[in-house]
Amino acid sequence: MKPINVGLLGIGTVGGGTFRVLKRNKEEITRRAGREIAIVTVADKDVEKARAIVGDGVRVTADAFEVVRDPEIDIVVELIGGYTVARELVMAAIENKKHVVTANKALLALHGNDIFAAAQRNGVMVAFEAAVAGGVPIIKSLREGLTANHIEWIAGIINGTSNFILSQMRDRGASFEDALKEAQARGYAEADPTFDIEGIDAAHKLTIMSAIAFGIPMQFSKCYTEGISKLTREDIRYAEEFGYRIKLLGITRRRPEGVELRVHPTLVPARQLIANVEGVMNAILVKGDVVGPTLYYGAGAGAEPTASAVVADLVDVTRLHTVDPNNRVPHLAFQPDAVQDIPILPMDQVETSYYLRLRALDRPGVLADVARVLADLEISIDAILQREPAEGEDQADIIILTHKTIEARMNAAIARIEALPTIIGKVTRIRLEFLNRH
Amino acid sequence: MKPINVGLLGIGTVGGGTFRVLKRNKEEITRRAGREIAIVTVADKDVEKARAIVGDGVRVTADAFEVVRDPEIDIVVELIGGYTVARELVMAAIENKKHVVTANKALLALHGNDIFAAAQRNGVMVAFEAAVAGGVPIIKSLREGLTANHIEWIAGIINGTSNFILSQMRDRGASFEDALKEAQARGYAEADPTFDIEGIDAAHKLTIMSAIAFGIPMQFSKCYTEGISKLTREDIRYAEEFGYRIKLLGITRRRPEGVELRVHPTLVPARQLIANVEGVMNAILVKGDVVGPTLYYGAGAGAEPTASAVVADLVDVTRLHTVDPNNRVPHLAFQPDAVQDIPILPMDQVETSYYLRLRALDRPGVLADVARVLADLEISIDAILQREPAEGEDQADIIILTHKTIEARMNAAIARIEALPTIIGKVTRIRLEFLNRH
Repeated sequence: MKPINVGLLGIGTVGGGTFRVLKRNKEEITRRAGREIAIVTVADKDVEKARAIVGDGVRVTADAFEVVRDPEIDIVVELIGGYTVARELVMAAIENKKHVVTANKALLALHGNDIFAAAQRNGVMVAFEAAVAGGVPIIKSLREGLTANHIEWIAGIINGTSNFILSQMRDRGASFEDALKEAQARGYAEADPTFDIEGIDAAHKLTIMSAIAFGIPMQFSKCYTEGISKLTREDIRYAEEFGYRIKLLGITRRRPEGVELRVHPTLVPARQLIANVEGVMNAILVKGDVVGPTLYYGAGAGAEPTASAVVADLVDVTRLHTVDPNNRVPHLAFQPDAVQDIPILPMDQVETSYYLRLRALDRPGVLADVARVLADLEISIDAILQREPAEGEDQADIIILTHKTIEARMNAAIARIEALPTIIGKVTRIRLEFLNRH
Repeated sequence: MKPINVGLLGIGTVGGGTFRVLKRNKEEITRRAGREIAIVTVADKDVEKARAIVGDGVRVTADAFEVVRDPEIDIVVELIGGYTVARELVMAAIENKKHVVTANKALLALHGNDIFAAAQRNGVMVAFEAAVAGGVPIIKSLREGLTANHIEWIAGIINGTSNFILSQMRDRGASFEDALKEAQARGYAEADPTFDIEGIDAAHKLTIMSAIAFGIPMQFSKCYTEGISKLTREDIRYAEEFGYRIKLLGITRRRPEGVELRVHPTLVPARQLIANVEGVMNAILVKGDVVGPTLYYGAGAGAEPTASAVVADLVDVTRLHTVDPNNRVPHLAFQPDAVQDIPILPMDQVETSYYLRLRALDRPGVLADVARVLADLEISIDAILQREPAEGEDQADIIILTHKTIEARMNAAIARIEALPTIIGKVTRIRLEFLNRH
C-alpha cells in the first residue's frame, strides 16, 4: 500500500521531534499502522534550518498555505502554535478536505468549536492528543477509554514548568523567583514565563478536557485562572506540616447547577498519588462514576514526548481516514448533536475547602474573633495552627483549614477577618481539595 | 438508528455490573456512541437469578450456545471465565461472525493466538480491555496511545489482592497469613486464593500486555511466576530501611536477545510513584523510547470498574463493526502479518538487581567470605546492612543489595553462599528494579 502523505507545518522543537521519531521508528510504526506514514513536505519560515533537519527527499517550503492546498497531502500536522496564522492554516486545510493533527491547545481552547464544526462539515478529523499532557494518552482515555462513565471531575497537573518550580520550592526551600530562574536555566521555562506560571497554559488544556469529559463546548473565557507567582515558601511549609502538598491544579467538576472550570494552586493530601508527582511531569486524575478514580502520568512537554502523541494521532487518522465519518470518535467525545450547553459556574459559586494564613497581633481573643466570623458564615473549621510569635515580635501566623464552602461565602469571611483590628494585612487564601469525594 | 444487540454470557459480579451501568448511564453512553447499546439476551446457568437482575424485556436463557448462534445478536460479551466452556463459546461466536467482548485474561493468555486468528479469518473484533487492570484503559493506551514508541519495558501492579496483602503487611506489620485473612474477609481474595497470591493471575495479564507491546504471540507457558506467599514482615521492614517497597510486579522487557516475562515480588525505590500504589489498586508503568515513562492507575477489579472497560469496548465495537477490518486496530497492536516470534528468555537469563537476606553466625570474616563469593562472580554490591545479634544470640541477619547481574550468576552465588560454614539455612532472594533505566 502506498504511504499516507503528511505535510508538516513548523519544524521547531516538536516538529523536529516528530520528523525524527517517524524516521527512527518507521519500521515499528508501519507494522502497527499497516501503512507507511511519510512526511513529504515541510513548511517553515526558516527554510535553511528545515532543509538541514530533513535532508533530501522531502520538499521544503516557506509557504505553509501551499501545503494545506496541495492535493498530494492527506494529513496536515500543525505545529506552528499561536492562534492567528495557525487558525487560518487549520481552517484552510479543513476546507481542502485534509485531516489535521495539532498540538495547539491555545488554538483549540479559543477556536475549537468553530474548527470542529468545520471539520464535521467537511468530513475530516482534527486530532489533538498532543494538545494536553504531551505524550500521555489522556485525550484517548477520556474520549474512548471511559465512555461508560458519567465523569464527575478531573484534577490535573498539566503544566510541567509550574510543577517543576513548586517541586524546587518544596525540596530545596527555594523562593519562587529562584525556582523560576532554575527552570529557565534548564530550558523548562521561557524568557517570558507568563503563560506557564500564571496558569494560562493549564487553562487551555483544562478547557479541552472539560469539553470532552462533559460534552460541552469549549469555553476558555469562563475559566478561572490563578497562577503560582504569589506562592511563598512559608505556605508550602505550613501545608507540609498539615500533611499537604501545594500543586497547580486544573480542576473541572460537574455539579447539578453547572460546571466548575478553574486553575489555581491547591493543597492536596500528601498521601494522594498526584501529590507525589514531581518535576516537569504531568498527571491527570479523572473520577468516573463507574470506574472510580483513574490516573494518567507522564511527560507533559518536550520534543519527543509531544511527538509521541502527534504520531499516535497520525496512526489513528491513517486507520480511519477512509471510514464513514459517523463511525469515527466524535471530536468532543459526544456526537455533535448531543453536545449540551451546560453553563460554566462563576468562581464565587465554586465549592471547595480552604487554607487561610493570617498575620495577627499576639492578643488574647484573636482566635475567638476569627472563629466567630467563620461560624457566622457557617464555615466549619477543620484544623487551626497558631504559631508563637518570634522572639521580640508581637505578631504571629495563624493557619486555618476549613471544610467545604462556597467561594462567595469565603470571600465574605475573608473581608470580615481582614477588617478585624487584630489582623494585619491581607489574608492568604489557597484552595484545598481532598480528591477522594464528589 | 436501531440499537446494537448484545448477548451477555454470565451475569455474575462483572456481568451484573455491566448490565447496571448500561442501564444507569444509557443516555450518556448513547450520546457518545451515537447508537443505543442494548443487552437483549442474557445466558446464565442460574436462570432465576438472571431474571431477578434483568427484569422484563430481556430474554434469559440457560443455554449460552443458543446466544452465540442467534442471528439477532451483533456482539457477544463473554463473562463466564475459565477456559473450557468459555473457549468453545468464544470460538462459536466468532465462527457465527459475532464480535466478542471479554474480560477473560486466562482464556486470552492461553488461547489468544487461536482466538485472534479465528477473529481475523471471520472479520470480527475480539475486544479485551477488561482483561487487564479492570477499568484502567491500559490496552487502549498500549495499542493506540503509544503507537509511536518502541516499547522498552512494562512493570505493573496488576493483581489487587496481592497488593492489598502487601499494603497490610507494611502498614500494620501483619503477617502474610493475617493479611490474607483480612483480604478474604473483605471479599478481595477468594476461598482458594492461589491464582492471586501465587502470581498466576498477574502472569495472565502480563502475557497479554507483553504480546501487544512487542508484537509477539501470547506465550503464557514461558512466563516465570513467583507469588507473595513466602514474603515475611522482616523483608518488608528491611526493604523499608533501605528506602524500598516490595510490590508484586509483572515485568516484561525487550532485550536484544529476547523478551523477559516474569512475575515476582520486587523491591522498588519508595520515591517511585508505583511504589506508592496501595490497597487493591492497580498501576502499570510503561517505558517507551519516545514518550519516556508513563503510568496508568485505577481500580483493577470489582463489578463496576471492570464493567467500565467492558462498556468502553462495546462502544468501540459499535463504532467500528461496519468498518473494513483492515481499518480497525489489530488485535495484537501490530498487523497480523507483522507479529514476530521473538523468544521469551528463560529466567536464568533475566538481568536484574537483587536483595539478599542471609542468616549468619556472629564470627569475624563472615562478611568478607560473602563479599568474596560475589566478587568472584563479578556481582557488584550496592549496600550491605549487618544486624547486631539479638541479646544472648549468636546469629544475625545480613542484608545485601546488589547491582544488576544475570540470574544464572546470582543462582551460582547463592549456592556458594549457602555452602559457607558460617551461613545458616537458605538465602532469601528478592529481585530489585529501579524502573528508571533500560
